[in-house]
Amino acid sequence: MTLRLDFSRMMAPPIPSGATEAEWSELAARFRDVHAAVSRDAGRGRFGFLELEAQAAEHARVVAFADSTRSRSDDVVVLGIGGSALGAVALRTALGGAARGPRLHVLDNVDPAPIAALLARLDLSRTFVCVISKSGTTVETLAQYAVVRAALERAVPSPERHIAFVTDPVVGPLREAARREGIPAFEIPANVGGRFSVLTPVGTLPAALAGYDTSALLAGAKAMRERCATAELAKNPAGVFALLQWRAHQRAGQGIHVLMPYGELLRDVGPWFAQLWAESLGKVDEDGLNVGPTPLAARGAADQHSQLQLLMEGPADKTVTFVLPGRGPDDLRVPDQPDLPPAVAHLRGRTLGELLAAECHATADALASAGRPSMSLALDAADAHDLGALLLLLMKATLNAGVIYRVNPLDQPGVELGKRLAREALATGRPDAVADPRWSV
Amino acid sequence: MTLRLDFSRMMAPPIPSGATEAEWSELAARFRDVHAAVSRDAGRGRFGFLELEAQAAEHARVVAFADSTRSRSDDVVVLGIGGSALGAVALRTALGGAARGPRLHVLDNVDPAPIAALLARLDLSRTFVCVISKSGTTVETLAQYAVVRAALERAVPSPERHIAFVTDPVVGPLREAARREGIPAFEIPANVGGRFSVLTPVGTLPAALAGYDTSALLAGAKAMRERCATAELAKNPAGVFALLQWRAHQRAGQGIHVLMPYGELLRDVGPWFAQLWAESLGKVDEDGLNVGPTPLAARGAADQHSQLQLLMEGPADKTVTFVLPGRGPDDLRVPDQPDLPPAVAHLRGRTLGELLAAECHATADALASAGRPSMSLALDAADAHDLGALLLLLMKATLNAGVIYRVNPLDQPGVELGKRLAREALATGRPDAVADPRWSV
Repeated sequence: MTLRLDFSRMMAPPIPSGATEAEWSELAARFRDVHAAVSRDAGRGRFGFLELEAQAAEHARVVAFADSTRSRSDDVVVLGIGGSALGAVALRTALGGAARGPRLHVLDNVDPAPIAALLARLDLSRTFVCVISKSGTTVETLAQYAVVRAALERAVPSPERHIAFVTDPVVGPLREAARREGIPAFEIPANVGGRFSVLTPVGTLPAALAGYDTSALLAGAKAMRERCATAELAKNPAGVFALLQWRAHQRAGQGIHVLMPYGELLRDVGPWFAQLWAESLGKVDEDGLNVGPTPLAARGAADQHSQLQLLMEGPADKTVTFVLPGRGPDDLRVPDQPDLPPAVAHLRGRTLGELLAAECHATADALASAGRPSMSLALDAADAHDLGALLLLLMKATLNAGVIYRVNPLDQPGVELGKRLAREALATGRPDAVADPRWSV
Repeated sequence: MTLRLDFSRMMAPPIPSGATEAEWSELAARFRDVHAAVSRDAGRGRFGFLELEAQAAEHARVVAFADSTRSRSDDVVVLGIGGSALGAVALRTALGGAARGPRLHVLDNVDPAPIAALLARLDLSRTFVCVISKSGTTVETLAQYAVVRAALERAVPSPERHIAFVTDPVVGPLREAARREGIPAFEIPANVGGRFSVLTPVGTLPAALAGYDTSALLAGAKAMRERCATAELAKNPAGVFALLQWRAHQRAGQGIHVLMPYGELLRDVGPWFAQLWAESLGKVDEDGLNVGPTPLAARGAADQHSQLQLLMEGPADKTVTFVLPGRGPDDLRVPDQPDLPPAVAHLRGRTLGELLAAECHATADALASAGRPSMSLALDAADAHDLGALLLLLMKATLNAGVIYRVNPLDQPGVELGKRLAREALATGRPDAVADPRWSV
């Protein structure tokens, strides 16, 4: 087993606001319907991220291309935003230690300062650029691309040899440019949206270029998909995750869902999950109500010194999910120094990895003793296989949650207005909004 | 004026759930009492972070030490956690472009992997280490220090020449070690807690070693302190920020307070603010109730593609505060390429900085059109002076919020239990908590 979900601290007892055994039976019955609905839609091809076999050929293309490209690159630059960037960042941070390849930079914003700083630093003749946008019309990404492309034009004789696109299989400006210029372009299947795309070339191309084992990533995802194929709640981690979060929200007012990986490797899984959970579930439900949990990305042990006070003694409106990676190969022992202060004498001979794990368990115990719910996702290792399992679990859980929150987890109708207003403001040269001078200081 | 707070979108009209003019008058009256309470406690010396003049001599020591140390270091490593790290990270990200000095690494966690990776990469003979802990007993920091110290012992002849402490002026293991070994040690005043310490050597020593202008940082903070010295709400940005957030929480159920800087420079102000707001206010109030807002650090424009859907259409339980830095010197123009796709033709000749600002204003407008409240903190520049003003504003606002939420903003009683449980687990070698096998998958 690569991953274990311990949800005993979501139950009553020991957590007064947790699910009782009677509620658990009710949730298990309810999950059979949820699972059937998701399976039905999966059968209709709505959830492309589950169709890993159908994407095997494209993945083989990614690997072959990366293998042939890696040696002529010292740096790989990803241009993308939102779902076209957060997955690559999560993979890089989690697997970075295992890389043998070029440095991976992800530019996921239009702030000119870091873009200019990076361009000034790179040897563009040894740089490879991945431009990622499913529609090919993402304004931020195309703006970045225009800037980076111009820099490439100035610096190298054949810029198109330094570029690949990841985009729609058929349509859009990037697909057209690929045809026109002979730029390699990899496919995001039509039935995979940005926040569900980490296992497609959106995540695997940057990861493979950086030298990470994307085959192991996909194998881990596949294994977890099989584990989550059962309608039996007690055996389905994606079912348990979704239904217990929903129940905590619905029945106990715990609508803020904290994801708190311990350690640095999995820290960027937090923002990736935050997008997935927020953008999939935060919307108008079938009754026209504004619903959805608020995800909050935290990071242990550091945020014990930042967020834990609020989690322990603030309003009882949160659940916490700890994610604990297995011990890595690089553990460090606290040396047996004679002058170690008494306050930390108990650390003598312990490793930092042991300290991290002890803090994670102690934090869960402390929360429980204050009646605050939590669950723990423990990975065997922090390798590509277990990471793939974790990511698939959370994506599948999001589908389950979509059914039970009664929303469409695949759309994001609320973001269009902001895009249109920004476009109009730029097109018309409208000055910055002027405040009502009475309400400004 | 270095910084302008536009709160028109917290008011009704245009925001239905916003403050009416009558409520504003009531808040202004109430603020006179809040301000008097904070001023009284300030006069009693409770809030050391406001006493910038008293710390001038120590700051001069920091600058002189940094000036004499910088040239013998290629890398500066900060060991600290929580309030002993988040400020340095925020300063580094915001001012990094202006640095002329060594690279600044902040190790604020006990995950062994990145520590081992960094130690393997550094030339320790050209590395300087800052160990930051007010009490000198922070277990994570001392564990890191023991590991790094052992590496220094192996690598250089005089390890103590590569180390400085930032700690209590009088007591604690780091202060004692400083005396014993002749290691330079800088002072965190007794009346400055971790999350309020960014303007003390906790923030200024790392920043000065990296070559940032800490005098400008303190000058900006001082100017903002003067602006916030008035009991007149309409003229006091720290008063407006605190009272409008509190009102939104109390009267409109908007208890999730999003801080959303636009662009990359100010992104790490988000986690710094999240600690400040969460740990200061999330606690048991004078009536024994669990109170406090939940801060959420976001990042524009990237999170328009991640969190905006939830902000627009999820539950109406949030306020958003945008932070927009002034244009920097490194703006990049979108080139006038003939093949720019129609979707982004309006970008032609525009700069990335203009795009970023337009997106920030458009997002505020879009939220307002959905009835969602927001305010905007606009900085003249993203330089050290304006950054100092921003940080002081938010710290002073936290004191105001402490009064009106009726909590002690300076303590964190909820974090002790977790520390004790972790210590016991490590001391006794207790195995990892075993889950109730029924509630595990």
